[in-house]
Amino acid sequence: MSVAGIGPVGRPEAAEAVLDAKRRKNVSWQRIADEIGRSKVWTTAALLGQHPVSQEQARAVARLLGLDDVTAEALRLPPVRGEDSVDPTEPVVARLEEIVQVYGGAVSELIREEFGDGIMSAVDFTMDLRRSDTPEGTRVVITLDGKYLPYREF
Amino acid sequence: MSVAGIGPVGRPEAAEAVLDAKRRKNVSWQRIADEIGRSKVWTTAALLGQHPVSQEQARAVARLLGLDDVTAEALRLPPVRGEDSVDPTEPVVARLEEIVQVYGGAVSELIREEFGDGIMSAVDFTMDLRRSDTPEGTRVVITLDGKYLPYREF
Amino acid sequence: MSVAGIGPVGRPEAAEAVLDAKRRKNVSWQRIADEIGRSKVWTTAALLGQHPVSQEQARAVARLLGLDDVTAEALRLPPVRGEDSVDPTEPVVARLEEIVQVYGGAVSELIREEFGDGIMSAVDFTMDLRRSDTPEGTRVVITLDGKYLPYREF
Amino acid sequence: MSVAGIGPVGRPEAAEAVLDAKRRKNVSWQRIADEIGRSKVWTTAALLGQHPVSQEQARAVARLLGLDDVTAEALRLPPVRGEDSVDPTEPVVARLEEIVQVYGGAVSELIREEFGDGIMSAVDFTMDLRRSDTPEGTRVVITLDGKYLPYREF
Amino acid sequence: MSVAGIGPVGRPEAAEAVLDAKRRKNVSWQRIADEIGRSKVWTTAALLGQHPVSQEQARAVARLLGLDDVTAEALRLPPVRGEDSVDPTEPVVARLEEIVQVYGGAVSELIREEFGDGIMSAVDFTMDLRRSDTPEGTRVVITLDGKYLPYREF
Amino acid sequence: MSVAGIGPVGRPEAAEAVLDAKRRKNVSWQRIADEIGRSKVWTTAALLGQHPVSQEQARAVARLLGLDDVTAEALRLPPVRGEDSVDPTEPVVARLEEIVQVYGGAVSELIREEFGDGIMSAVDFTMDLRRSDTPEGTRVVITLDGKYLPYREF
Amino acid sequence: MSVAGIGPVGRPEAAEAVLDAKRRKNVSWQRIADEIGRSKVWTTAALLGQHPVSQEQARAVARLLGLDDVTAEALRLPPVRGEDSVDPTEPVVARLEEIVQVYGGAVSELIREEFGDGIMSAVDFTMDLRRSDTPEGTRVVITLDGKYLPYREF
Amino acid sequence: MSVAGIGPVGRPEAAEAVLDAKRRKNVSWQRIADEIGRSKVWTTAALLGQHPVSQEQARAVARLLGLDDVTAEALRLPPVRGEDSVDPTEPVVARLEEIVQVYGGAVSELIREEFGDGIMSAVDFTMDLRRSDTPEGTRVVITLDGKYLPYREF
Amino acid sequence: MSVAGIGPVGRPEAAEAVLDAKRRKNVSWQRIADEIGRSKVWTTAALLGQHPVSQEQARAVARLLGLDDVTAEALRLPPVRGEDSVDPTEPVVARLEEIVQVYGGAVSELIREEFGDGIMSAVDFTMDLRRSDTPEGTRVVITLDGKYLPYREF
Amino acid sequence: MSVAGIGPVGRPEAAEAVLDAKRRKNVSWQRIADEIGRSKVWTTAALLGQHPVSQEQARAVARLLGLDDVTAEALRLPPVRGEDSVDPTEPVVARLEEIVQVYGGAVSELIREEFGDGIMSAVDFTMDLRRSDTPEGTRVVITLDGKYLPYREF
Repeated sequence: MSVAGIGPVGRPEAAEAVLDAKRRKNVSWQRIADEIGRSKVWTTAALLGQHPVSQEQARAVARLLGLDDVTAEALRLPPVRGEDSVDPTEPVVARLEEIVQVYGGAVSELIREEFGDGIMSAVDFTMDLRRSDTPEGTRVVITLDGKYLPYREF
Repeated sequence: MSVAGIGPVGRPEAAEAVLDAKRRKNVSWQRIADEIGRSKVWTTAALLGQHPVSQEQARAVARLLGLDDVTAEALRLPPVRGEDSVDPTEPVVARLEEIVQVYGGAVSELIREEFGDGIMSAVDFTMDLRRSDTPEGTRVVITLDGKYLPYREF
Repeated sequence: MSVAGIGPVGRPEAAEAVLDAKRRKNVSWQRIADEIGRSKVWTTAALLGQHPVSQEQARAVARLLGLDDVTAEALRLPPVRGEDSVDPTEPVVARLEEIVQVYGGAVSELIREEFGDGIMSAVDFTMDLRRSDTPEGTRVVITLDGKYLPYREF
Repeated sequence: MSVAGIGPVGRPEAAEAVLDAKRRKNVSWQRIADEIGRSKVWTTAALLGQHPVSQEQARAVARLLGLDDVTAEALRLPPVRGEDSVDPTEPVVARLEEIVQVYGGAVSELIREEFGDGIMSAVDFTMDLRRSDTPEGTRVVITLDGKYLPYREF
Repeated sequence: MSVAGIGPVGRPEAAEAVLDAKRRKNVSWQRIADEIGRSKVWTTAALLGQHPVSQEQARAVARLLGLDDVTAEALRLPPVRGEDSVDPTEPVVARLEEIVQVYGGAVSELIREEFGDGIMSAVDFTMDLRRSDTPEGTRVVITLDGKYLPYREF
Repeated sequence: MSVAGIGPVGRPEAAEAVLDAKRRKNVSWQRIADEIGRSKVWTTAALLGQHPVSQEQARAVARLLGLDDVTAEALRLPPVRGEDSVDPTEPVVARLEEIVQVYGGAVSELIREEFGDGIMSAVDFTMDLRRSDTPEGTRVVITLDGKYLPYREF
Repeated sequence: MSVAGIGPVGRPEAAEAVLDAKRRKNVSWQRIADEIGRSKVWTTAALLGQHPVSQEQARAVARLLGLDDVTAEALRLPPVRGEDSVDPTEPVVARLEEIVQVYGGAVSELIREEFGDGIMSAVDFTMDLRRSDTPEGTRVVITLDGKYLPYREF
Repeated sequence: MSVAGIGPVGRPEAAEAVLDAKRRKNVSWQRIADEIGRSKVWTTAALLGQHPVSQEQARAVARLLGLDDVTAEALRLPPVRGEDSVDPTEPVVARLEEIVQVYGGAVSELIREEFGDGIMSAVDFTMDLRRSDTPEGTRVVITLDGKYLPYREF
Repeated sequence: MSVAGIGPVGRPEAAEAVLDAKRRKNVSWQRIADEIGRSKVWTTAALLGQHPVSQEQARAVARLLGLDDVTAEALRLPPVRGEDSVDPTEPVVARLEEIVQVYGGAVSELIREEFGDGIMSAVDFTMDLRRSDTPEGTRVVITLDGKYLPYREF
Repeated sequence: MSVAGIGPVGRPEAAEAVLDAKRRKNVSWQRIADEIGRSKVWTTAALLGQHPVSQEQARAVARLLGLDDVTAEALRLPPVRGEDSVDPTEPVVARLEEIVQVYGGAVSELIREEFGDGIMSAVDFTMDLRRSDTPEGTRVVITLDGKYLPYREF
């Protein structure tokens, strides 16, 4: 367990308070994102505890959702990233995992061929999620965009 | 272990033969994809053993890469999907896994809010991978596009 | 852990309250299902925390079982699906797991042969459970009914 | 590892030979089942190595598929049941596992309420799988039918 | 986690209260078993939370051990069976596990040969444990007695 | 992996040869046990590789089953005990494991109360397995008999 | 989890109270051992929860360390042995584990050769730990002394 | 897997050849140890693959046991240490593991108190194993002797 | 779980209090390190619970950060080392783990060749971490410095 | 398993051939590194299979070590990175893992404070290993040098 964020009001409790207030106030993630000038995906991930939140951002969120000061301050704690952040067997996440199973080898191969010996960064990275209504039904479209980092030869 | 594909020449051996021939002939995945009229990602995944390959497709690949008949026939075996298809600690895949860790919760939240109680299908699904050259460097852009499936209430 | 549903009164606590009230009032699952106009299996799964419950449904259940407002509201929280929902070594569940072990390969084979390259959906899905009294003894009959989803070739 | 079935030609190798011959001869599982007078599901599971096969059944299958004597004899070896029989992450099986996750608790509850303290047997058990074409699309319908066994109080 | 038995006073807490009262009153398991007219092994397992306890049995145990009403009622909750019921590395249990390792294959072989393709039921099952004083020292003698269930061919 | 027994003809291969010859010659485990003057359970476990076999015993078994010298010699190798000896998910063994789950705590409790702080040995140990035909059906009766060993206080 | 010792003041809490009092009173383990007439190793293990403590011993320890009655009584609860008793990755323990890795095979071999088919008991067992100051530095010397138990042939 | 020692004749195969020759020639570990001027424990561990063997030692062992040159050379390969060296569930080793469980916490405590913040080295380490015949029976006595290493404060 | 440090205010709670006070007072780790005359890395690790802290050090830290007496005393408890100290999937740590994966084999090889059969101590060990600003960007430079310990031949 | 490198002569077999030839020719890693103009650490990791090797490098290594063409060609296959590359319980590697346990939290803290919300790259990364002879003994000094990558806010 990362030592940061232990305690009675840490990032998980702040995330819960955000979810609770959001339900009561019936505010969308897009609306919160607009308030702090960030994208919908980054904002959702950040308020669920995966990214640091600046003082200004925390205040704006607290104002919009009516959060108390303890929660607003807790939002400013360091993020608590790691595998406990998500349940790989939750059905939505399980399908993302299955996509990595089925297509992970192809992604490795294609990056090696088209970019070289390296990786797509998960840190210098952005993500978008949008709805696409097609004649064959509604589709979820997720875009992953990460910097290519070549291995250094030394 | 999936019962299909057991034996001296199964899908893994066929995948290896494809990789070997591809290296010797210096043919790109895009070139193979063009030959069979499918996308680069689907083609790579399929030839690595993740999708069924039709007789016509197998023949076209065999012709292009100079594969023998046993390999061409093995390409037609059922796919062998499952977690052994990919090593989650291989650095490229490890970063995809980390992206699921950091953003999986946000994806669940956003699908619930914007679509309803359901999932993004990993079966009625397409993926694209492309290179994006920006002033700040080269980026890998991956698009996931899956049908939204609502849970059925009964 | 899915971030939704964390907290002092989440779906697990609501499920416990339902079970407790149900025991005290001696009400059957079928009776609750009738009250909300859903099947017995869906209703049981939903009240144990696996499906979302509408406001109307939550009110009807609360009225029937005499639940307090906090519990009724907690029933409306998002479901908390995932592998922690069930203990795979609990004897009833262990036998379902063993059935998947013994017959899972056959199901894969038969779907591939009779339907094609695809899956039986666990989302666009219904289940029924009924008692069958035969001369050789009582039997449990469970019906799984899921949409066939073919893999998309792209 | 179960000690039975170790060796150069065991049940897994026999299963592979059956699958191979079946593909070459283009024979359906239903056709094989008819030949030995058993159901399609039992036959598929048995030939994949999950059930014992009688001498008469082994001979009938060998005749139909043109299997050699070594394979026919290997079909008569004891079954090799256990978790290695199936990959729980193979997409078809993964959805069966998810169904156990989502509905396993409900099944336990309903058996307890409607039958008593006991289980649905996975041994005194039959399964059926059929196709259902509905206006909303094709569906896979699987029926599980197991004897109810009450715990003995002593 | 099985959903039944969650909460402040469930079966684990009732088991603890029984153990505590039993120590204070210095009552043997055999004595409790006599009180409810069941065997020593069933009674111990039941009060540790592995079997349902009838109202009459719960009252008799409560009377004998001086348990309060909340505990007596908690004893009547459904059992919480599963692998968390016991620590496989606790030295007494570890030796039972080792016996399964060393003799499990032999038991499978002998049941197959002497009974047929089937199992010894763990549900239609009784167990006895007794002390045997021999010239070479004291021995623990445990008898397992379960119904033979043949696999159904269908 | 225990270093003993590695190699082309070790105890596992000898066990397989015994099983194969036993099937061909249609000899029962009891018959083999009689030949070497040991019990049926010990003999089965020993020939499956769990106990050392003396030269005299190996010769008697080889004579009865018509084993070659290499196999007879391999039977004399040290036993290869450990968790790989048996698959805990094989249905017969799985029920033994479930019995340990359900009754392991009771066994610990009863040994502590009736014997003291100690264990039932799995080494100074014997086992019997027999068939019991009752009006309610056939039952498998297994007796475990191990020396009580008290913890030494020092 | 072993059922014994569940609850607000069990053996783990008693162990913590002992450690706390010992620090405040600055008493050595040897001093406590002398008080109860047992060895230093047994005493430390016992007070950490691994062995039963007699009423007389508990009183003597309570008197020496100034423990309250609840703690003294909790020391008399059954031990809670099992793998949760120790963290195999704690650096001191990790080196004991590594010693088992490097020398475990040799110990098996030497016991087999010099004693026969059997084990060194971990129950009829004593341990000593002492300091040895040598010209090359201080050394920790641990002696393990367990009864040889031969496997019983039956 | 450690990269060293991969291949057709590595340390595991050399260990097997030593065990095989030792059985045929009926030579004791002590006899081999005397031949190379090392202790019985070190020699056994080394020949099982856990320590490097010098050219002189390899030659002496080869001469004594009649090993061929390939084996003698393989003995000189780097050791292959790691958790695959030993099966923690093999009964002899399992009891060593249980000793670490029961006494590991006490060892940590006593080293901390009597030596300071540090460890007993598993590298600057020796082990002895001897037989002790007492009136109460035969005992196995193992001595572990490792350098005390204090943590460096910097 | 290591027995030391259990309880309401142990090392983890002290670490949390340090982190909290440090944030409020806006004090750097280097500043704290200077106060106690140790390096930045040792100080951070120690206050997060990985090293013992002397009375003098605890007082100095408490004075600088304004910690209460309970926390200051808790800092003096024994360290709680082990794998729970850190989440191997936290992104910063995950990359350290990946470095061990990619370069661990090389480190083993080079130590064997250049030093002999032995290890780099993790106990007689120091670490430094510094920032390096280069024309190509900012770099993190970590130095590991551990005593070489040769295996003892005995 | 990464699909690249499967087959009779892949990177693992090439690594083995390099190790074997290196031993026979008695060539140091530094010597090989000099031959290809790379550092000792990169060269060792690369030839063990962790980095791609250019045609020129493969030829130079083959010439120096006298490798055959098949091996030289195999060296040019893509690297096979992932957790199977190294055994985390091999003693040298186990100490690196322990260092990550003890200091991983401190590294996270210090990077967050001194650099910001980001990571040390394991890809844009170099490592050095050298010997340091001090009055207190020989020390291994390893330097890790990776680019700081800040999380992107979007």
